[in-house]
Amino acid sequence: MKEQPEVTIQFQPIGKRVQVAAQTNLLEAARLAGIALTSTCGGEGNCGQCRVQVVSGSVSPLTEDERFLLGEAEIEAGYRLACCTRAWSDVRLHVPPDSLDSGQRLQIESVLRPIPPEPVVQAIPVSCPPPTLHDPRSDWTRLKEAITAQSGSTEITTSNAFLQQLPTAIRQLGWSANILWRHNEVIGLTPAHQKLLGLAVDLGSTKIAATLLELESGQVLSTSGAPNPQISYGEDVVSRLAYAQRNAAGSQKLAELVRQTIDELLLKMLNKVSAAPEQVAEACIVGNTAMTHLLLGWPVRQLALSPYVAASSEPLEVLASELGLRMAPGARVYIPPAIGGYIGSDHIAMVLASELDRNERLAIGIDIGTNTEISLRIPGKETLTAVSCASGPAFEGAHIRDGMRAASGAIEKVRLTPQGVQIETVDHEPPIGFCGSGILDAIAELYRAGYLLPNGRFNRQRLALLGNSEPRFVFVPADKSGNGREIALTQKDINEIQLAKGAIHAGMKILLETNQIAPEAVEEVIVAGAFGSYISLPSAVQIGLFPPLPHARYRQVGNAAAIGAQWMLLSQSARRRAEEIARRTHYLELSTVPKFNLYFAHAMHFPVHSEKN
Amino acid sequence: MKEQPEVTIQFQPIGKRVQVAAQTNLLEAARLAGIALTSTCGGEGNCGQCRVQVVSGSVSPLTEDERFLLGEAEIEAGYRLACCTRAWSDVRLHVPPDSLDSGQRLQIESVLRPIPPEPVVQAIPVSCPPPTLHDPRSDWTRLKEAITAQSGSTEITTSNAFLQQLPTAIRQLGWSANILWRHNEVIGLTPAHQKLLGLAVDLGSTKIAATLLELESGQVLSTSGAPNPQISYGEDVVSRLAYAQRNAAGSQKLAELVRQTIDELLLKMLNKVSAAPEQVAEACIVGNTAMTHLLLGWPVRQLALSPYVAASSEPLEVLASELGLRMAPGARVYIPPAIGGYIGSDHIAMVLASELDRNERLAIGIDIGTNTEISLRIPGKETLTAVSCASGPAFEGAHIRDGMRAASGAIEKVRLTPQGVQIETVDHEPPIGFCGSGILDAIAELYRAGYLLPNGRFNRQRLALLGNSEPRFVFVPADKSGNGREIALTQKDINEIQLAKGAIHAGMKILLETNQIAPEAVEEVIVAGAFGSYISLPSAVQIGLFPPLPHARYRQVGNAAAIGAQWMLLSQSARRRAEEIARRTHYLELSTVPKFNLYFAHAMHFPVHSEKN
Repeated sequence: MKEQPEVTIQFQPIGKRVQVAAQTNLLEAARLAGIALTSTCGGEGNCGQCRVQVVSGSVSPLTEDERFLLGEAEIEAGYRLACCTRAWSDVRLHVPPDSLDSGQRLQIESVLRPIPPEPVVQAIPVSCPPPTLHDPRSDWTRLKEAITAQSGSTEITTSNAFLQQLPTAIRQLGWSANILWRHNEVIGLTPAHQKLLGLAVDLGSTKIAATLLELESGQVLSTSGAPNPQISYGEDVVSRLAYAQRNAAGSQKLAELVRQTIDELLLKMLNKVSAAPEQVAEACIVGNTAMTHLLLGWPVRQLALSPYVAASSEPLEVLASELGLRMAPGARVYIPPAIGGYIGSDHIAMVLASELDRNERLAIGIDIGTNTEISLRIPGKETLTAVSCASGPAFEGAHIRDGMRAASGAIEKVRLTPQGVQIETVDHEPPIGFCGSGILDAIAELYRAGYLLPNGRFNRQRLALLGNSEPRFVFVPADKSGNGREIALTQKDINEIQLAKGAIHAGMKILLETNQIAPEAVEEVIVAGAFGSYISLPSAVQIGLFPPLPHARYRQVGNAAAIGAQWMLLSQSARRRAEEIARRTHYLELSTVPKFNLYFAHAMHFPVHSEKN
Repeated sequence: MKEQPEVTIQFQPIGKRVQVAAQTNLLEAARLAGIALTSTCGGEGNCGQCRVQVVSGSVSPLTEDERFLLGEAEIEAGYRLACCTRAWSDVRLHVPPDSLDSGQRLQIESVLRPIPPEPVVQAIPVSCPPPTLHDPRSDWTRLKEAITAQSGSTEITTSNAFLQQLPTAIRQLGWSANILWRHNEVIGLTPAHQKLLGLAVDLGSTKIAATLLELESGQVLSTSGAPNPQISYGEDVVSRLAYAQRNAAGSQKLAELVRQTIDELLLKMLNKVSAAPEQVAEACIVGNTAMTHLLLGWPVRQLALSPYVAASSEPLEVLASELGLRMAPGARVYIPPAIGGYIGSDHIAMVLASELDRNERLAIGIDIGTNTEISLRIPGKETLTAVSCASGPAFEGAHIRDGMRAASGAIEKVRLTPQGVQIETVDHEPPIGFCGSGILDAIAELYRAGYLLPNGRFNRQRLALLGNSEPRFVFVPADKSGNGREIALTQKDINEIQLAKGAIHAGMKILLETNQIAPEAVEEVIVAGAFGSYISLPSAVQIGLFPPLPHARYRQVGNAAAIGAQWMLLSQSARRRAEEIARRTHYLELSTVPKFNLYFAHAMHFPVHSEKN
């Protein structure tokens, strides 16, 4: 074998690099670097999934397969299929999230830039002389005087929670410690060498994602997640709100469940890094408006009934102890502002971290969920506009016969090829159902291949050719599935997705029209959230969920809400900016727009001329 | 019967008046006015207890009995025995507290002047437009804007506790209500017509006294009291502190007990005046340092061990909900400053309400209890000096064989006359034991009559004459008592009282000596507290508890700590003044004064020349 010179392949934004022989194809290079690019065809150049963007370096020319599978705009932007491209020199690649295997998706969070820490809590070292009979000043008086001597501050306050711990803690530490200083308040006490930590939480209605960070450096120390335990009281938000209203203690119960889970996640992470709750000086929790209401113990009746009003949409600082979180005694949880009953602090966090509010291009930020929030940024214009679309839980796999969450064995990618059905499952386990991105792919492929008509009905003739008498399409027969049951999409499943995508499409259309923007004028579409990061953009465009813009205008940013929560945990400027975003965002209530229902009805159809992009 | 012209007798500070025929004796006039003056002799002119001070008006001349029973200084100051004095014109009388029956003692609180209310919480009426789909601002945003429109304030904050109630409350009130405004914070919401109330509590180690007031007018609406439930975990403070340290959950338990009792007292008073917890906008709780530590859930180990240091002695505002008190959602409890481990906020409250800090005379303020706090005011001098004497619980009837609290049937006054033992009991019930003032009287009388020697030992010869073989003096034989048991004082009882009065006497002596003040230079002695208000001053002087000053220099002011708590509840200026008093008071730790033990030993003796005063 002829010896080739070595070249270095860098993968952004993952931050990995690998040395390979020149002429190595980029799919193989990615494998060697430990990066699992999606590839349902196994590197045959016919699934078009292993897309990467060549940022710099010299590579082999475009193949015919690539010309066929990539859109023109993508080719212009330097996109290639990794399996068809060989490195001729050192190469720097950008890996878009939807080319990544689900197991590696979390890493795409680093698509978003880190923020310079500017934490609200600082550690100040102090020492006091111990008390004597001749100097019996109280512990707190003594500590205050030491702080004044150290920092010059004379306006010093504290909470009862801190005073409850002070006498024991200060004696254990031998009258020499770090005080946790928040504005003019002492909120805790730690040994002098310990780092201050912070907790950032993305409180989703399905999943709770928590991150433990070091406040001063901004370093992520640990991450952890758990299903939202409220699920047992209602799969979707509406039924949980109903439960909370039906039962006197219902709100309290739902609040406790979610508080306990957050506390457990925190403790798990603290144990992992051998840290103590007293070190956790601050938290930031983002979530949709219903989730933050239930977390904070607020009534939800007015939120569940028209005109769907939040108790408060203003930023809030609440004692961690009030939420049952074991942190420093006076530590606060910052809950960022929301925009209204249907645009929560998670959307603000997403706008913040994706920097939509400062985008130099005409841009849309979209976070798909049971409610899908969309914000529009027009450069030079002071206000953003936001809408919320009732897209329902179908994209989360709910209300779909063989739907499931994105757990092991969930089909997340589908391709119909002349050779048959190609699928990819989470963790590469035998298939047991569809998660949202798989359903989207499956419907897009069924439509592309002519099994579905533009109105969403199955083409019975085409189905009949496959021997399917019922209006359903079997993707995995019972004997090939992981649980002995066939995996199919039914007409009802298709209809559910039509409703969901129709609501989003119509919402986006109203949003643009109200601002006199033509859809093709949108220069960037920022797609955030778990579902949005996992989906195939071509499929989303194929079924008309997203407008037929060039692929390169889409940017999948992963869980931007979680990153936004981290920003607001770490930086006071980020909080001020989030509050500014909330003030500057105009909420457009879709139900007040007469055309909405008409648009919604139209948008249920699939686009007749699916464009190549 | 010859018709006499009518005259009006006014009784101060009780504020009652009565029309009687001229020549009526003042004891009878008091009875007609519904005022029960003490009189163990039944108006015979030989017990000397029905003392009143004639402020204005013309009365019959002094009798021989009065010359014998009243001191010279008292006579000069216009003191008379009510039973020996007849009204010749309209007469204005001052009734000193110790001339009042115990049932009427509470009224002497009005000895202290009321304070002009200047409450920290105000009610501001607001109205908001209800939300619509076109105006879906959050409840809190809506309310804030209404407040800004009404008051001009733009810096408006609130608590999570308030937001938890806002949506339901504002809808119930039809979007028109009073907000409870505290500094820049909204702490509650009430119907527009409702008055704001406040709670003042004197948290004693034996008794908890609570008062419900109207904040704007300062009017007392209701009072209520209960035994401190911590008593079942320790009669005295030291054993409660020991319990709190021994048991992990001990502090928590003691805190809960006392919080629940305060909450129950509050609810009882609210029910009595048909008011709701939401109307209670603020509270002030005073107590000794141990009591406030246990209330607030602070550790007490450092308080129980030398050098006896408080967790904090600074003023504190704590959420009522944190103490389990059902009040307005964001209502605060103000805990005034303390001076040290042994001088609590109750003493500050007493100094404040008795205005010791502004006294124009050289004055002492004394509050007798298990610990007796004494403060010295020297006119023109910036600082007060305070000491705390470990006087023990004997004056509360504890550690005394037949001792009891000042409940029904407790002997509270004793006189030894040639006719035998004269006693007066609480509620005029058959005697079952001695309360503190009765013990004091009994010992003073035993000493005056020669049954006790100056060193505190019984004069066995005198006792033997009565047929008492054991060293004890029987005041009520078994067949005359309310429970079939004799009521006596034993040698051990005498010794307990000697220890108590010795500690107080020595403490006062050190306090004066350290400030180079001769005891006779003291121009006013303000005696506060339950015990101090019930005792007979001549008896206290007789046994050497108090220095032999003219009777008129003593002023019994009742439960001044409770009044001080009311002042601080009602007035922000009063709080600032209390904080000023705390800053300006120098605490003198008696155990650091070498002479203390010697003085203490001497002070156990009874004074050899008991002076008439």
